[in-house]
Amino acid sequence: MTYCVAVKLDAGMVFASDSRTNAGIDQISCFKKMRSFVEPGDRSVVVLSSGNLSITQKAINLMEQRARQTDRCNLWNAQSMFDVAQLLGECLREARDQDGVFLAQSNVDSGANFIVGGQIKGEPMRLFLVYAEGNFIEASDDTLFFRIGETKYGKPIIDRVIGHDTPLEDAVKCILVSFDSTMRSNLSVGLPIDLVIYRQDTFCLKLHQRITQDDPYFSQISRRWGEGLRGVFASLPNPEWLNDEPGGSS
Amino acid sequence: MTYCVAVKLDAGMVFASDSRTNAGIDQISCFKKMRSFVEPGDRSVVVLSSGNLSITQKAINLMEQRARQTDRCNLWNAQSMFDVAQLLGECLREARDQDGVFLAQSNVDSGANFIVGGQIKGEPMRLFLVYAEGNFIEASDDTLFFRIGETKYGKPIIDRVIGHDTPLEDAVKCILVSFDSTMRSNLSVGLPIDLVIYRQDTFCLKLHQRITQDDPYFSQISRRWGEGLRGVFASLPNPEWLNDEPGGSS
Repeated sequence: MTYCVAVKLDAGMVFASDSRTNAGIDQISCFKKMRSFVEPGDRSVVVLSSGNLSITQKAINLMEQRARQTDRCNLWNAQSMFDVAQLLGECLREARDQDGVFLAQSNVDSGANFIVGGQIKGEPMRLFLVYAEGNFIEASDDTLFFRIGETKYGKPIIDRVIGHDTPLEDAVKCILVSFDSTMRSNLSVGLPIDLVIYRQDTFCLKLHQRITQDDPYFSQISRRWGEGLRGVFASLPNPEWLNDEPGGSS
Repeated sequence: MTYCVAVKLDAGMVFASDSRTNAGIDQISCFKKMRSFVEPGDRSVVVLSSGNLSITQKAINLMEQRARQTDRCNLWNAQSMFDVAQLLGECLREARDQDGVFLAQSNVDSGANFIVGGQIKGEPMRLFLVYAEGNFIEASDDTLFFRIGETKYGKPIIDRVIGHDTPLEDAVKCILVSFDSTMRSNLSVGLPIDLVIYRQDTFCLKLHQRITQDDPYFSQISRRWGEGLRGVFASLPNPEWLNDEPGGSS
Protein backbone atom coordinates (compact mmCIF):
# COMPACT_ATOMS: atom_id res chain seq x y z
CA MET A 1 0.00 0.00 0.00
CA THR A 2 0.96 3.63 -0.17
CA TYR A 3 0.07 6.92 1.40
CA CYS A 4 0.78 10.14 -0.48
CA VAL A 5 -0.50 13.62 0.26
CA ALA A 6 -0.12 16.97 -1.44
CA VAL A 7 -1.60 20.29 -0.33
CA LYS A 8 -1.77 23.62 -2.14
CA LEU A 9 -1.88 26.60 0.21
CA ASP A 10 -1.56 30.32 -0.29
CA ALA A 11 2.07 30.19 0.79
CA GLY A 12 3.11 27.17 -1.22
CA MET A 13 2.77 23.44 -1.53
CA VAL A 14 3.77 20.43 0.54
CA PHE A 15 4.23 16.95 -0.95
CA ALA A 16 4.77 13.79 1.07
CA SER A 17 4.92 10.07 0.33
CA ASP A 18 5.66 6.93 2.25
CA SER A 19 7.99 4.35 0.74
CA ARG A 20 6.59 0.93 1.54
CA THR A 21 5.71 -1.34 -1.35
CA ASN A 22 4.16 -4.73 -0.89
CA ALA A 23 3.24 -7.57 -3.18
CA GLY A 24 1.64 -9.81 -0.57
CA ILE A 25 2.55 -9.39 3.06
CA ASP A 26 5.82 -11.28 2.72
CA GLN A 27 7.23 -9.12 -0.07
CA ILE A 28 7.71 -5.73 1.44
CA SER A 29 10.23 -3.35 -0.05
CA CYS A 30 11.22 0.28 0.12
CA PHE A 31 10.74 2.42 -2.99
CA LYS A 32 10.65 6.15 -3.27
CA LYS A 33 7.25 7.22 -4.58
CA MET A 34 8.20 10.84 -5.18
CA ARG A 35 9.93 12.33 -8.20
CA SER A 36 10.72 15.96 -8.75
CA PHE A 37 11.67 17.86 -11.90
CA VAL A 38 13.18 21.30 -11.47
CA GLU A 39 14.48 23.93 -13.88
CA PRO A 40 15.50 26.65 -11.44
CA GLY A 41 13.74 29.92 -12.12
CA ASP A 42 11.39 28.31 -14.65
CA ARG A 43 9.52 25.31 -13.24
CA SER A 44 9.22 22.93 -10.31
CA VAL A 45 7.14 19.80 -10.72
CA VAL A 46 6.62 17.06 -8.14
CA VAL A 47 4.99 13.69 -8.89
CA LEU A 48 3.69 11.27 -6.23
CA SER A 49 2.62 7.78 -7.24
CA SER A 50 0.54 4.90 -5.92
CA GLY A 51 -0.65 1.60 -7.32
CA ASN A 52 1.21 -0.96 -9.39
CA LEU A 53 4.89 -0.01 -9.07
CA SER A 54 5.98 -1.39 -12.45
CA ILE A 55 3.27 0.71 -14.10
CA THR A 56 4.06 3.93 -12.23
CA GLN A 57 7.79 3.52 -12.89
CA LYS A 58 7.15 2.84 -16.58
CA ALA A 59 4.84 5.84 -16.90
CA ILE A 60 7.45 8.13 -15.33
CA ASN A 61 10.15 6.69 -17.57
CA LEU A 62 8.00 7.22 -20.65
CA MET A 63 7.53 10.83 -19.56
CA GLU A 64 11.29 11.23 -19.17
CA GLN A 65 11.94 9.64 -22.57
CA ARG A 66 9.49 12.04 -24.12
CA ALA A 67 11.28 14.92 -22.42
CA ARG A 68 14.15 14.32 -24.86
CA GLN A 69 11.85 14.79 -27.86
CA THR A 70 12.12 18.55 -28.01
CA ASP A 71 9.74 18.87 -30.98
CA ARG A 72 6.79 17.71 -28.84
CA CYS A 73 5.18 19.05 -25.70
CA ASN A 74 7.23 17.64 -22.85
CA LEU A 75 8.07 18.16 -19.19
CA TRP A 76 10.57 20.91 -19.87
CA ASN A 77 8.74 22.93 -22.51
CA ALA A 78 5.13 22.51 -21.34
CA GLN A 79 3.48 25.92 -20.97
CA SER A 80 1.24 24.89 -18.09
CA MET A 81 0.83 22.35 -15.31
CA PHE A 82 -2.35 21.29 -17.11
CA ASP A 83 -0.15 20.13 -20.03
CA VAL A 84 2.09 18.26 -17.60
CA ALA A 85 -0.90 16.45 -16.06
CA GLN A 86 -2.13 15.63 -19.57
CA LEU A 87 1.30 14.27 -20.45
CA LEU A 88 1.48 12.13 -17.34
CA GLY A 89 -2.03 10.78 -17.99
CA GLU A 90 -0.99 9.84 -21.54
CA CYS A 91 2.16 8.11 -20.29
CA LEU A 92 0.10 6.21 -17.71
CA ARG A 93 -2.30 5.05 -20.45
CA GLU A 94 0.65 3.97 -22.59
CA ALA A 95 2.21 1.99 -19.73
CA ARG A 96 -1.10 0.24 -19.02
CA ASP A 97 -1.62 -0.42 -22.74
CA GLN A 98 1.75 -2.16 -22.89
CA ASP A 99 1.51 -4.25 -19.74
CA GLY A 100 -2.08 -4.24 -18.46
CA VAL A 101 -3.35 -7.17 -20.48
CA PHE A 102 -0.48 -9.40 -19.33
CA LEU A 103 -1.02 -8.42 -15.71
CA ALA A 104 -4.73 -9.14 -16.08
CA GLN A 105 -3.89 -12.70 -17.19
CA SER A 106 -2.41 -13.21 -13.72
CA ASN A 107 -5.20 -11.29 -12.00
CA VAL A 108 -2.80 -8.50 -11.16
CA ASP A 109 -4.26 -5.02 -11.12
CA SER A 110 -2.45 -2.53 -13.34
CA GLY A 111 -4.20 0.39 -11.65
CA ALA A 112 -2.08 3.36 -10.65
CA ASN A 113 -2.62 6.98 -9.65
CA PHE A 114 -0.52 10.08 -9.60
CA ILE A 115 -0.60 13.39 -7.84
CA VAL A 116 1.26 15.99 -9.85
CA GLY A 117 1.72 19.57 -8.82
CA GLY A 118 4.02 22.55 -8.90
CA GLN A 119 4.45 25.78 -10.76
CA ILE A 120 5.57 26.81 -14.24
CA LYS A 121 6.63 30.41 -14.88
CA GLY A 122 3.64 32.48 -16.02
CA GLU A 123 1.11 30.42 -14.05
CA PRO A 124 0.05 30.17 -10.42
CA MET A 125 0.78 26.94 -8.54
CA ARG A 126 -1.47 24.05 -9.61
CA LEU A 127 -2.18 20.59 -8.27
CA PHE A 128 -3.73 17.62 -10.10
CA LEU A 129 -4.88 14.11 -9.33
CA VAL A 130 -4.40 11.69 -12.25
CA TYR A 131 -6.74 8.70 -12.15
CA ALA A 132 -5.86 5.18 -13.26
CA GLU A 133 -7.69 5.82 -16.56
CA GLY A 134 -5.43 8.78 -17.33
CA ASN A 135 -8.08 11.46 -16.82
CA PHE A 136 -7.43 14.01 -14.10
CA ILE A 137 -8.92 16.67 -11.83
CA GLU A 138 -7.46 19.85 -10.40
CA ALA A 139 -7.46 21.05 -6.80
CA SER A 140 -9.50 24.18 -6.18
CA ASP A 141 -9.99 26.71 -3.41
CA ASP A 142 -12.51 24.31 -1.88
CA THR A 143 -10.37 21.20 -2.19
CA LEU A 144 -6.88 22.08 -1.11
CA PHE A 145 -5.38 18.61 -0.94
CA PHE A 146 -5.24 15.28 -2.73
CA ARG A 147 -4.33 11.94 -1.24
CA ILE A 148 -3.72 8.60 -2.95
CA GLY A 149 -3.27 5.07 -1.62
CA GLU A 150 -4.45 4.38 1.94
CA THR A 151 -6.28 7.69 2.15
CA LYS A 152 -8.80 7.30 4.93
CA TYR A 153 -7.08 6.94 8.30
CA GLY A 154 -5.12 10.15 7.88
CA LYS A 155 -7.96 12.29 6.54
CA PRO A 156 -9.71 13.48 9.74
CA ILE A 157 -6.77 15.56 11.02
CA ILE A 158 -6.23 17.16 7.60
CA ASP A 159 -9.96 17.94 7.38
CA ARG A 160 -9.80 19.67 10.75
CA VAL A 161 -6.58 21.64 10.37
CA ILE A 162 -5.80 22.61 6.78
CA GLY A 163 -7.19 25.83 5.30
CA HIS A 164 -5.86 27.87 2.38
CA ASP A 165 -4.11 30.27 4.77
CA THR A 166 -2.46 27.53 6.88
CA PRO A 167 1.29 28.27 7.16
CA LEU A 168 3.55 25.74 5.45
CA GLU A 169 5.08 24.80 8.81
CA ASP A 170 1.67 23.82 10.17
CA ALA A 171 0.87 21.92 6.98
CA VAL A 172 4.08 19.90 7.39
CA LYS A 173 3.18 19.09 11.00
CA CYS A 174 -0.36 18.15 10.02
CA ILE A 175 0.82 15.89 7.23
CA LEU A 176 3.25 14.12 9.56
CA VAL A 177 0.47 13.57 12.12
CA SER A 178 -1.68 12.26 9.30
CA PHE A 179 1.10 9.80 8.34
CA ASP A 180 1.42 8.75 11.97
CA SER A 181 -2.30 7.89 12.15
CA THR A 182 -2.15 6.05 8.84
CA MET A 183 0.92 3.99 9.75
CA ARG A 184 -0.63 3.03 13.08
CA SER A 185 -3.75 1.67 11.39
CA ASN A 186 -2.22 0.14 8.26
CA LEU A 187 1.08 -1.70 8.50
CA SER A 188 1.54 -1.61 4.74
CA VAL A 189 2.22 2.13 4.94
CA GLY A 190 5.69 2.73 6.39
CA LEU A 191 8.70 4.94 6.92
CA PRO A 192 10.75 6.57 5.50
CA ILE A 193 8.56 9.50 4.48
CA ASP A 194 9.79 11.75 1.69
CA LEU A 195 8.76 15.34 2.10
CA VAL A 196 9.17 18.34 -0.18
CA ILE A 197 8.15 21.95 0.31
CA TYR A 198 7.62 24.41 -2.50
CA ARG A 199 7.24 28.11 -1.72
CA GLN A 200 5.11 30.08 -4.16
CA ASP A 201 6.94 31.83 -7.03
CA THR A 202 10.37 30.42 -6.10
CA PHE A 203 10.53 27.92 -9.00
CA CYS A 204 12.85 25.73 -7.03
CA LEU A 205 12.32 23.10 -4.31
CA LYS A 206 13.74 24.39 -1.08
CA LEU A 207 13.53 21.38 1.12
CA HIS A 208 13.84 17.67 0.58
CA GLN A 209 13.51 15.83 3.84
CA ARG A 210 13.61 12.07 4.29
CA ILE A 211 12.06 11.05 7.61
CA THR A 212 13.40 7.72 8.77
CA GLN A 213 12.78 5.41 11.71
CA ASP A 214 15.21 7.33 13.89
CA ASP A 215 13.99 10.82 13.07
CA PRO A 216 13.82 12.54 16.48
CA TYR A 217 11.26 15.12 15.37
CA PHE A 218 8.85 12.56 13.95
CA SER A 219 9.20 10.38 17.07
CA GLN A 220 8.51 13.41 19.20
CA ILE A 221 5.35 14.55 17.44
CA SER A 222 4.13 10.97 17.18
CA ARG A 223 4.49 10.56 20.95
CA ARG A 224 3.15 13.99 21.87
CA TRP A 225 0.21 13.64 19.52
CA GLY A 226 -0.71 10.28 21.06
CA GLU A 227 -0.38 11.64 24.59
CA GLY A 228 -2.30 14.77 23.67
CA LEU A 229 -5.17 12.77 22.14
CA ARG A 230 -5.44 10.60 25.21
CA GLY A 231 -5.37 13.75 27.37
CA VAL A 232 -8.19 15.40 25.43
CA PHE A 233 -10.12 12.14 25.52
CA ALA A 234 -9.71 11.84 29.29
CA SER A 235 -10.98 15.40 29.72
CA LEU A 236 -14.27 14.70 27.91
CA PRO A 237 -17.21 14.41 30.29
CA ASN A 238 -19.10 11.14 30.72
CA PRO A 239 -22.66 11.13 29.42
CA GLU A 240 -25.14 11.82 32.19
CA TRP A 241 -27.51 9.21 30.83
CA LEU A 242 -25.02 6.50 31.74
CA ASN A 243 -25.84 7.08 35.41
CA ASP A 244 -29.55 6.46 35.19
CA GLU A 245 -29.78 3.38 33.03
CA PRO A 246 -33.41 2.70 32.21
CA GLY A 247 -34.20 -0.88 31.25
CA GLY A 248 -35.15 -1.58 27.68
CA SER A 249 -35.22 -4.13 24.93
CA SER A 250 -36.63 -4.49 21.47
CA MET B 1 -23.08 3.70 3.80
CA THR B 2 -23.07 2.62 7.39
CA TYR B 3 -20.87 2.72 10.42
CA CYS B 4 -21.36 0.12 13.15
CA VAL B 5 -19.03 -0.71 16.04
CA ALA B 6 -19.13 -3.27 18.81
CA VAL B 7 -16.54 -3.76 21.56
CA LYS B 8 -16.16 -6.55 24.09
CA LEU B 9 -14.49 -5.45 27.32
CA ASP B 10 -13.99 -7.06 30.70
CA ALA B 11 -16.92 -5.10 32.09
CA GLY B 12 -19.35 -5.65 29.25
CA MET B 13 -20.11 -4.77 25.67
CA VAL B 14 -21.03 -1.63 23.78
CA PHE B 15 -22.86 -1.69 20.43
CA ALA B 16 -23.45 1.34 18.24
CA SER B 17 -24.80 1.94 14.75
CA ASP B 18 -25.59 4.93 12.60
CA SER B 19 -28.88 5.02 10.71
CA ARG B 20 -28.22 6.53 7.30
CA THR B 21 -29.03 4.45 4.26
CA ASN B 22 -28.36 5.60 0.76
CA ALA B 23 -29.08 4.22 -2.67
CA GLY B 24 -27.28 6.90 -4.65
CA ILE B 25 -26.70 10.32 -3.13
CA ASP B 26 -30.26 11.48 -3.78
CA GLN B 27 -31.96 8.60 -1.96
CA ILE B 28 -30.97 8.96 1.64
CA SER B 29 -33.15 7.48 4.34
CA CYS B 30 -33.05 6.68 8.01
CA PHE B 31 -33.17 3.01 9.05
CA LYS B 32 -32.22 1.49 12.33
CA LYS B 33 -29.35 -0.95 11.80
CA MET B 34 -29.48 -2.45 15.27
CA ARG B 35 -31.73 -5.23 16.51
CA SER B 36 -31.70 -6.75 19.96
CA PHE B 37 -33.19 -9.98 21.28
CA VAL B 38 -33.52 -10.35 25.03
CA GLU B 39 -34.86 -13.08 27.29
CA PRO B 40 -34.24 -11.51 30.69
CA GLY B 41 -32.05 -13.68 32.89
CA ASP B 42 -31.25 -16.05 30.00
CA ARG B 43 -29.82 -14.24 26.96
CA SER B 44 -29.12 -10.89 25.39
CA VAL B 45 -28.20 -10.75 21.73
CA VAL B 46 -27.51 -7.62 19.66
CA VAL B 47 -27.19 -7.60 15.87
CA LEU B 48 -25.69 -4.71 13.85
CA SER B 49 -25.98 -4.74 10.07
CA SER B 50 -24.37 -3.12 7.04
CA GLY B 51 -24.63 -3.59 3.30
CA ASN B 52 -27.69 -4.13 1.13
CA LEU B 53 -30.64 -3.19 3.33
CA SER B 54 -33.16 -5.52 1.68
CA ILE B 55 -30.77 -8.42 2.25
CA THR B 56 -30.00 -7.59 5.89
CA GLN B 57 -33.70 -7.09 6.66
CA LYS B 58 -34.60 -10.38 4.96
CA ALA B 59 -31.86 -12.27 6.81
CA ILE B 60 -33.07 -10.92 10.17
CA ASN B 61 -36.67 -11.77 9.26
CA LEU B 62 -35.67 -15.30 8.28
CA MET B 63 -33.95 -15.64 11.64
CA GLU B 64 -37.09 -14.43 13.41
CA GLN B 65 -39.29 -16.81 11.39
CA ARG B 66 -37.02 -19.66 12.33
CA ALA B 67 -37.30 -18.63 15.99
CA ARG B 68 -40.88 -19.89 15.85
CA GLN B 69 -39.76 -23.36 14.79
CA THR B 70 -39.11 -24.69 18.26
CA ASP B 71 -37.93 -28.09 17.01
CA ARG B 72 -34.81 -26.53 15.46
CA CYS B 73 -31.90 -24.55 16.85
CA ASN B 74 -33.11 -20.99 16.95
CA LEU B 75 -32.44 -17.63 18.55
CA TRP B 76 -34.22 -18.53 21.77
CA ASN B 77 -32.98 -22.06 22.35
CA ALA B 78 -29.41 -21.80 20.98
CA GLN B 79 -26.93 -23.02 23.60
CA SER B 80 -24.18 -20.65 22.54
CA MET B 81 -23.47 -17.41 20.74
CA PHE B 82 -21.52 -19.50 18.24
CA ASP B 83 -24.81 -21.18 17.29
CA VAL B 84 -26.45 -17.76 16.93
CA ALA B 85 -23.67 -16.55 14.62
CA GLN B 86 -24.01 -19.77 12.60
CA LEU B 87 -27.77 -19.22 12.38
CA LEU B 88 -27.37 -15.63 11.23
CA GLY B 89 -24.80 -16.68 8.63
CA GLU B 90 -27.23 -19.32 7.29
CA CYS B 91 -30.06 -16.78 7.11
CA LEU B 92 -27.78 -14.35 5.28
CA ARG B 93 -26.88 -17.06 2.76
CA GLU B 94 -30.56 -17.88 2.29
CA ALA B 95 -31.46 -14.21 1.72
CA ARG B 96 -28.68 -13.85 -0.85
CA ASP B 97 -29.69 -17.13 -2.51
CA GLN B 98 -33.21 -15.81 -2.94
CA ASP B 99 -32.43 -12.30 -4.19
CA GLY B 100 -28.75 -12.09 -5.13
CA VAL B 101 -29.07 -13.25 -8.72
CA PHE B 102 -31.82 -10.72 -9.45
CA LEU B 103 -29.79 -7.92 -7.90
CA ALA B 104 -26.77 -8.97 -9.95
CA GLN B 105 -28.84 -8.58 -13.14
CA SER B 106 -29.09 -4.88 -12.29
CA ASN B 107 -25.47 -4.68 -11.12
CA VAL B 108 -26.64 -4.23 -7.54
CA ASP B 109 -24.41 -5.74 -4.88
CA SER B 110 -26.19 -8.10 -2.51
CA GLY B 111 -23.27 -8.02 -0.07
CA ALA B 112 -24.06 -7.57 3.61
CA ASN B 113 -22.29 -7.99 6.94
CA PHE B 114 -23.38 -8.46 10.50
CA ILE B 115 -21.83 -7.99 13.88
CA VAL B 116 -23.57 -10.19 16.42
CA GLY B 117 -22.71 -10.34 20.08
CA GLY B 118 -24.05 -10.83 23.55
CA GLN B 119 -24.27 -13.50 26.20
CA ILE B 120 -26.23 -16.69 26.71
CA LYS B 121 -26.49 -18.21 30.18
CA GLY B 122 -23.67 -20.70 30.75
CA GLU B 123 -21.23 -18.87 28.48
CA PRO B 124 -19.05 -15.77 28.71
CA MET B 125 -19.86 -12.80 26.48
CA ARG B 126 -18.96 -13.38 22.83
CA LEU B 127 -18.73 -11.19 19.76
CA PHE B 128 -18.74 -12.27 16.10
CA LEU B 129 -18.33 -10.69 12.69
CA VAL B 130 -20.40 -12.40 9.98
CA TYR B 131 -19.03 -11.92 6.46
CA ALA B 132 -21.11 -11.51 3.31
CA GLU B 133 -20.45 -15.20 2.48
CA GLY B 134 -21.99 -16.30 5.78
CA ASN B 135 -18.74 -17.41 7.40
CA PHE B 136 -17.72 -15.63 10.58
CA ILE B 137 -14.89 -14.85 13.00
CA GLU B 138 -14.91 -14.25 16.74
CA ALA B 139 -13.34 -11.39 18.68
CA SER B 140 -10.48 -12.40 20.96
CA ASP B 141 -8.42 -10.85 23.73
CA ASP B 142 -6.22 -9.33 21.04
CA THR B 143 -9.05 -8.03 18.90
CA LEU B 144 -11.62 -6.43 21.15
CA PHE B 145 -13.77 -4.72 18.57
CA PHE B 146 -15.39 -5.18 15.19
CA ARG B 147 -16.53 -2.48 12.83
CA ILE B 148 -18.53 -2.77 9.62
CA GLY B 149 -19.39 -0.27 6.88
CA GLU B 150 -17.26 2.86 6.67
CA THR B 151 -14.70 1.50 9.09
CA LYS B 152 -11.54 3.49 8.49
CA TYR B 153 -12.02 7.10 9.57
CA GLY B 154 -13.09 6.15 13.07
CA LYS B 155 -10.44 3.51 13.70
CA PRO B 156 -7.44 5.56 14.91
CA ILE B 157 -9.10 6.77 18.12
CA ILE B 158 -10.38 3.28 18.97
CA ASP B 159 -6.90 1.86 18.32
CA ARG B 160 -5.43 4.38 20.74
CA VAL B 161 -7.95 4.21 23.57
CA ILE B 162 -9.67 0.83 23.88
CA GLY B 163 -8.11 -1.95 25.97
CA HIS B 164 -9.80 -4.93 27.60
CA ASP B 165 -9.95 -3.10 30.94
CA THR B 166 -11.39 0.14 29.54
CA PRO B 167 -14.47 1.11 31.57
CA LEU B 168 -17.76 1.00 29.67
CA GLU B 169 -18.19 4.76 30.14
CA ASP B 170 -14.89 5.42 28.38
CA ALA B 171 -15.78 2.97 25.63
CA VAL B 172 -19.04 4.84 25.02
CA LYS B 173 -17.18 8.15 24.82
CA CYS B 174 -14.57 6.66 22.51
CA ILE B 175 -17.18 5.20 20.21
CA LEU B 176 -19.01 8.52 20.00
CA VAL B 177 -15.76 10.31 19.13
CA SER B 178 -15.16 7.63 16.52
CA PHE B 179 -18.61 8.31 15.04
CA ASP B 180 -17.91 12.03 15.05
CA SER B 181 -14.70 11.52 13.02
CA THR B 182 -16.49 9.18 10.61
CA MET B 183 -19.45 11.47 10.05
CA ARG B 184 -17.15 14.43 9.40
CA SER B 185 -15.27 12.53 6.69
CA ASN B 186 -18.14 10.60 5.09
CA LEU B 187 -21.50 12.27 4.64
CA SER B 188 -23.22 8.96 4.00
CA VAL B 189 -22.80 8.07 7.69
CA GLY B 190 -25.26 10.07 9.78
CA LEU B 191 -27.23 10.60 12.96
CA PRO B 192 -29.13 9.31 14.82
CA ILE B 193 -26.77 6.85 16.46
CA ASP B 194 -28.27 3.88 18.27
CA LEU B 195 -26.29 2.78 21.28
CA VAL B 196 -26.70 -0.17 23.59
CA ILE B 197 -24.69 -1.21 26.63
CA TYR B 198 -24.57 -4.71 28.01
CA ARG B 199 -22.99 -5.33 31.42
CA GLN B 200 -21.43 -8.76 31.90
CA ASP B 201 -23.64 -11.48 33.44
CA THR B 202 -26.76 -9.27 33.58
CA PHE B 203 -28.57 -11.03 30.68
CA CYS B 204 -30.51 -7.89 29.95
CA LEU B 205 -29.75 -4.70 28.04
CA LYS B 206 -29.55 -1.85 30.45
CA LEU B 207 -29.38 1.10 28.16
CA HIS B 208 -30.82 1.93 24.79
CA GLN B 209 -29.85 5.41 23.77
CA ARG B 210 -30.74 7.11 20.52
CA ILE B 211 -28.44 10.05 19.84
CA THR B 212 -30.08 12.57 17.56
CA GLN B 213 -29.09 15.85 15.94
CA ASP B 214 -30.03 17.82 19.05
CA ASP B 215 -28.31 15.59 21.59
CA PRO B 216 -26.50 18.05 23.90
CA TYR B 217 -23.94 15.51 25.06
CA PHE B 218 -22.92 14.47 21.57
CA SER B 219 -22.71 18.12 20.45
CA GLN B 220 -20.56 18.86 23.46
CA ILE B 221 -18.04 16.06 22.97
CA SER B 222 -17.94 16.71 19.23
CA ARG B 223 -17.07 20.37 19.88
CA ARG B 224 -14.65 19.70 22.74
CA TRP B 225 -12.90 16.93 20.83
CA GLY B 226 -12.40 19.21 17.82
CA GLU B 227 -11.12 22.05 20.00
CA GLY B 228 -8.90 19.66 21.95
CA LEU B 229 -7.37 18.20 18.79
CA ARG B 230 -6.62 21.65 17.45
CA GLY B 231 -5.11 22.57 20.83
CA VAL B 232 -2.83 19.53 20.87
CA PHE B 233 -1.91 20.21 17.26
CA ALA B 234 -1.03 23.83 18.02
CA SER B 235 1.18 22.69 20.90
CA LEU B 236 3.33 20.45 18.68
CA PRO B 237 6.75 21.96 17.93
CA ASN B 238 7.76 22.95 14.42
CA PRO B 239 10.51 20.87 12.83
CA GLU B 240 13.89 22.54 13.24
CA TRP B 241 14.88 21.54 9.74
CA LEU B 242 12.26 23.93 8.38
CA ASN B 243 14.40 26.85 9.48
CA ASP B 244 17.53 25.91 7.58
CA GLU B 245 16.19 24.94 4.20
CA PRO B 246 18.97 23.49 2.10
CA GLY B 247 18.45 23.65 -1.66
CA GLY B 248 17.88 20.42 -3.49
CA SER B 249 16.33 18.77 -6.46
CA SER B 250 16.31 15.38 -8.09
